[in-house]
Amino acid sequence: MSRISCPTLSTRVVTAAEAAAYITDGDRVAMSGFTGSGYPKAVPGALAEHARAEHGAGRDFRVELWTGASTAPELDGVLAEAGAVSKRLPFQSDPAMRQSINDGKTEYIDTHLSHSAQQAWFGFYGNLDVAVVEVAAILPGGLLVPGSSVGNSKTWLDLADKVILEVNSWHPRAYEGFHDVYYGTRRPPERLPIQLLEPMQRIGDPYLRVDPAKVVAVVETHSPDRNLPFKPVDEDSKAIAAHLVDFLRHEIRADRLPPSLLPLQSGVGNVANAVMADLADSEFEGMRAYTEVIQDGMLDLIDSGKLTSVSATAFSLSAERAADFNENIEAYKGRILLRTQEMSNHPEAVRRLGVVAINGMVEADIYGNVNSTHVMGSSIINGIGGSGDFARNSYLNFFVSNSLAKGGAISSIVPFASHIDHTEHDTQILVTEQGLADLRGISPVARARRIIANCAHPDYRDRLEDYLERAIAANPHGRHTPHLLGEALSWHERFQATGHM
Amino acid sequence: MSRISCPTLSTRVVTAAEAAAYITDGDRVAMSGFTGSGYPKAVPGALAEHARAEHGAGRDFRVELWTGASTAPELDGVLAEAGAVSKRLPFQSDPAMRQSINDGKTEYIDTHLSHSAQQAWFGFYGNLDVAVVEVAAILPGGLLVPGSSVGNSKTWLDLADKVILEVNSWHPRAYEGFHDVYYGTRRPPERLPIQLLEPMQRIGDPYLRVDPAKVVAVVETHSPDRNLPFKPVDEDSKAIAAHLVDFLRHEIRADRLPPSLLPLQSGVGNVANAVMADLADSEFEGMRAYTEVIQDGMLDLIDSGKLTSVSATAFSLSAERAADFNENIEAYKGRILLRTQEMSNHPEAVRRLGVVAINGMVEADIYGNVNSTHVMGSSIINGIGGSGDFARNSYLNFFVSNSLAKGGAISSIVPFASHIDHTEHDTQILVTEQGLADLRGISPVARARRIIANCAHPDYRDRLEDYLERAIAANPHGRHTPHLLGEALSWHERFQATGHM
Repeated sequence: MSRISCPTLSTRVVTAAEAAAYITDGDRVAMSGFTGSGYPKAVPGALAEHARAEHGAGRDFRVELWTGASTAPELDGVLAEAGAVSKRLPFQSDPAMRQSINDGKTEYIDTHLSHSAQQAWFGFYGNLDVAVVEVAAILPGGLLVPGSSVGNSKTWLDLADKVILEVNSWHPRAYEGFHDVYYGTRRPPERLPIQLLEPMQRIGDPYLRVDPAKVVAVVETHSPDRNLPFKPVDEDSKAIAAHLVDFLRHEIRADRLPPSLLPLQSGVGNVANAVMADLADSEFEGMRAYTEVIQDGMLDLIDSGKLTSVSATAFSLSAERAADFNENIEAYKGRILLRTQEMSNHPEAVRRLGVVAINGMVEADIYGNVNSTHVMGSSIINGIGGSGDFARNSYLNFFVSNSLAKGGAISSIVPFASHIDHTEHDTQILVTEQGLADLRGISPVARARRIIANCAHPDYRDRLEDYLERAIAANPHGRHTPHLLGEALSWHERFQATGHM
Repeated sequence: MSRISCPTLSTRVVTAAEAAAYITDGDRVAMSGFTGSGYPKAVPGALAEHARAEHGAGRDFRVELWTGASTAPELDGVLAEAGAVSKRLPFQSDPAMRQSINDGKTEYIDTHLSHSAQQAWFGFYGNLDVAVVEVAAILPGGLLVPGSSVGNSKTWLDLADKVILEVNSWHPRAYEGFHDVYYGTRRPPERLPIQLLEPMQRIGDPYLRVDPAKVVAVVETHSPDRNLPFKPVDEDSKAIAAHLVDFLRHEIRADRLPPSLLPLQSGVGNVANAVMADLADSEFEGMRAYTEVIQDGMLDLIDSGKLTSVSATAFSLSAERAADFNENIEAYKGRILLRTQEMSNHPEAVRRLGVVAINGMVEADIYGNVNSTHVMGSSIINGIGGSGDFARNSYLNFFVSNSLAKGGAISSIVPFASHIDHTEHDTQILVTEQGLADLRGISPVARARRIIANCAHPDYRDRLEDYLERAIAANPHGRHTPHLLGEALSWHERFQATGHM
C-alpha cells in the first residue's frame, strides 16, 4: 500500500534524478538526518551524479549542505566524493566529508546542535533554497509522519523555497505517534516559555507540516538507515562505566541525586552502551532519559524495565537492533518520543529537567578544559554536536575517554588541550578507565592534581606531575592556572614529530 | 528613623565585631555584593581584624568566601590582606584578592554567575555556615528590602545556618519596589518554566525573606558602595562603539533585528559606556536592557528617553552618579528592576528574550576563541562573570577590545589564545577600534582572514597573516583549523621573555 495518501502530493512523484534536477549550482540545500537515521537515501546520490556530470562538462556545481547532524555514505559520502559541497553545517562524521573539510575543500561550520535551527531562522546562514526531507508516510491532508529522526526537518520545511520529500517505506508505518514536533517556536521578541515539565510530555504535534505548494517532487524509496555494525563492549569501556555508575551511587548517598537519578543524556559509542549495560544491572528503577540519540544500549535499558521513558531526536542503532525495533515497534509506543533537535537539546529544557550528561572527549588538559573535536589542533574529527548544549546546562556532566589512544602513543590527559570545546567553567567530572576526577568546587591546581592522579595513565602520570610542579614553580605570581607556555603544546608537537607523545 | 522595623530583629543589633565573632575558622561564609554594590561594609573588616588577631596568637583562621560577584576593598581587600580566605567563588576583581589567588594562597572557583546559586543549592560546594547580607531596611514582619544589588542574596539567606544582616542607611529607603526576587526556583526534578516574557515583567517578590530564627546578628551602617571614579570615554572606545552601533543598523536593514533592537546586555567598562553614549545619540527608540549591571552610561540612556526599561542584578556606578541616583531614585521607579543573578543571567531568559550581548575580552585568537580571564595563560585577572551566560544564549554576541595593550607590546589578536573561556562555537562578532569581524556562518579559516583583516592592529597584521598562511601550508590535511603547534603560543612566550609580542 502506498505511503502517499495525499492526492495533491501523490501527483508529484518522480525519480530521484528528476527531483535532484530542482537543485542548482550554488544552492543552499538542507536535508533531514541525524546520526545516520532519517536522512534521504536517493536524492543525494542523484545529486552527486549530476554534480559529476556538470564537473565533467567543465561547469561549476557545488551546494551548501545543512542537515540535522551526521548522515551516511549515501549522503555526506557521495556528495563529498563528488566535490559537490562548498559548505557544511552543523555536524558530520563521514570519512569522505571529513577529508574534504580537512583538505580545505569544504567550509565547515561546527555549531551547537540546539543553535542550528534558530540561527538558520534568524537569517544568519542566508536564504534556504531547497529542503530534502525523508518521511515515513504522507497523510491524506498532507501532514508528514517522520521516521527514525526528527532533527531539523521542521525548520528546513518551514524555511525552504522548494521542498523535495522522500517517502521511505523501510520505516515502519507504525512510527505515527512516536514524534512530538514543537510548533511553538518564535523569533525574539515573541518567544514564549516552553511548557515542558518532564521528558515524555507532549508539547507539539505528531506530524511535520509542509506547504504543499512548495513541494516540487516526491520520491519513493525502501532503504535502510546507515548500517552501523554492532560492537561488543570492551574492557576499558566497562571500567569507565563502572566508575561512573559508582559515582552516581555516591551522589545518591550524599543526597545530591534522587534514587531514580535525573534524566540521562548520553552520547554515542561504546562507553555509552557500557554505561547503559551497567545501569540495566543496577539497583536503579524508574529512570528516564532526555537525550539526543537512542542507541542499542538505551533500547536494552528500556527492555530491562528500568528505563521508563526516553525523549530524543533520533535513533542510532546497529543494523540488527534496528531490524528488531522495526519489527516490535508497537511495544515501544508511549515510552519513546522523538522531538526536534532544537527541543531535545534546548538549554531551557536541559537545565529545567536537570539532565545528567555523559559525553565522550578526545582529550582533556590538566585543568579540565576538554577537546571534543580536533586531532593535534588542526584536523576536525566530527564536531561538537550536542555536547555543549548538554554539558553547560546539565545538573551533572561527565566527559569520558580511554586514558590512552593509538596503542599508548597518545595520552588523553595533556598539559594544554590542542583545541578547546568545553572550558574549565563547564566541565565537572572526568572519567577514564583509570578512575574518576570530580572537579566541582575546586581550583584549577587542585583539579590538575586530581585529574593526574585519578584519570591519567600511569605511563604519563609522572610527566604530567612534573609539568604541573615546574609550572607552579615557574609562576610564583601566576599560580591560578600555571603553565609553561614553551612546553604547553609540546606533547602534541612531539607526537607529530615522532609518532609518540 | 531606624531602618529596622521588625521587633524581633531589632533586639539582635550588635557591633560589627560582635557579629563577626559568630564566624569561626573553616566556615563557609557567603556575603552579598555584586560589582561593588550592596556588599556588607562593616562585618568583613571586623572579621579581617579577628583573623589577624588569631594569626597573631598562632592560630589558624581562614574562611571560604562566596559572594554574588566582585565586591570592594572593604570586603575582598581586607580579607585577602589578612590572609583570611582559603577559597573564593564565584567572581572577584579586587587587587589584593587577585594577588592572593595568583600567589596560590587562595583557591579560586571561577564559575558562570548563573550557575553559582544553583550549584550551592545542589550541595556541590558543601554546607553554608554563615550568610552576611546587606539590606536597605527591615520591614515590621521581617521582610528585607535589598539595596543596590540582589546578586545571590536570596540563595545565601535560604541556605545558611546562621545569618548576619547589615542594614545600610546610605541606600535610599525608596529602594523598596525596585527589586524582583524570584522564589519559584526548585531543584530538579521539580523545576517549572520561568514565566518571564519581557525584561521589566515581575515574576517574584519585592523583598528578600529570612527565617528570623537564623538571624544571629544585625549591624547598622551608613556607608557608600565602592568608590568607582568616573572615567571619560577614550577615542578607542568611541571607535569600537561606532563600529558596533553601525553593525546594529546593518542588521536592522537586513531584517535580522527589529528597529528598537532586542534587549541589550553590556559588561562594565569604558567601551560599554561608549556604546550607551552612541545609542543615546542614535535614531533607535524604545530600547530595553536585560543585563547584569547598570553603569553610568545605561542611566544616561534611560535619561535620554531612548531606553525605556532595564532589568539587572546590580548597579555599578561612579560615586558621582550613585549620589545623583540616590537623590533622584523616585524618577527611576518602574524603569529599573533588580533581580537575583540567577534570573538576570538565566540561559532560559537570555535565549527567550533574544539578548544582544556585549562583553569585553582580553584576547581572541585568529579562529575566534576568546580569552576573558587570564594574562599569558597562568594569571587570573577577574573571572568569566556573566559573559558565558549571555554569549552562549544570546541572539547576537559581541566581544570587544582594543587591538593593542601595554602601549603596543601586546596584540589582542593572537595565533592561539593562551586561555579559552568562549569557544569558536559561541563567539559571533569581534570588534576592536580597527573594525568588526562578523564570524557567523563561516569556517575557521574564513574567520581568521576576516579577524586579521578587520580587527588586528596593522603592526601585527602581517605576522598574523604569515602565521595563518604557513599553518595552512604545513597542514595539507588539517586545513579546518590549521595551526603550527610549535609557534601557536610563541607570541605569549616572546612577551614573557622580552616584554613585547
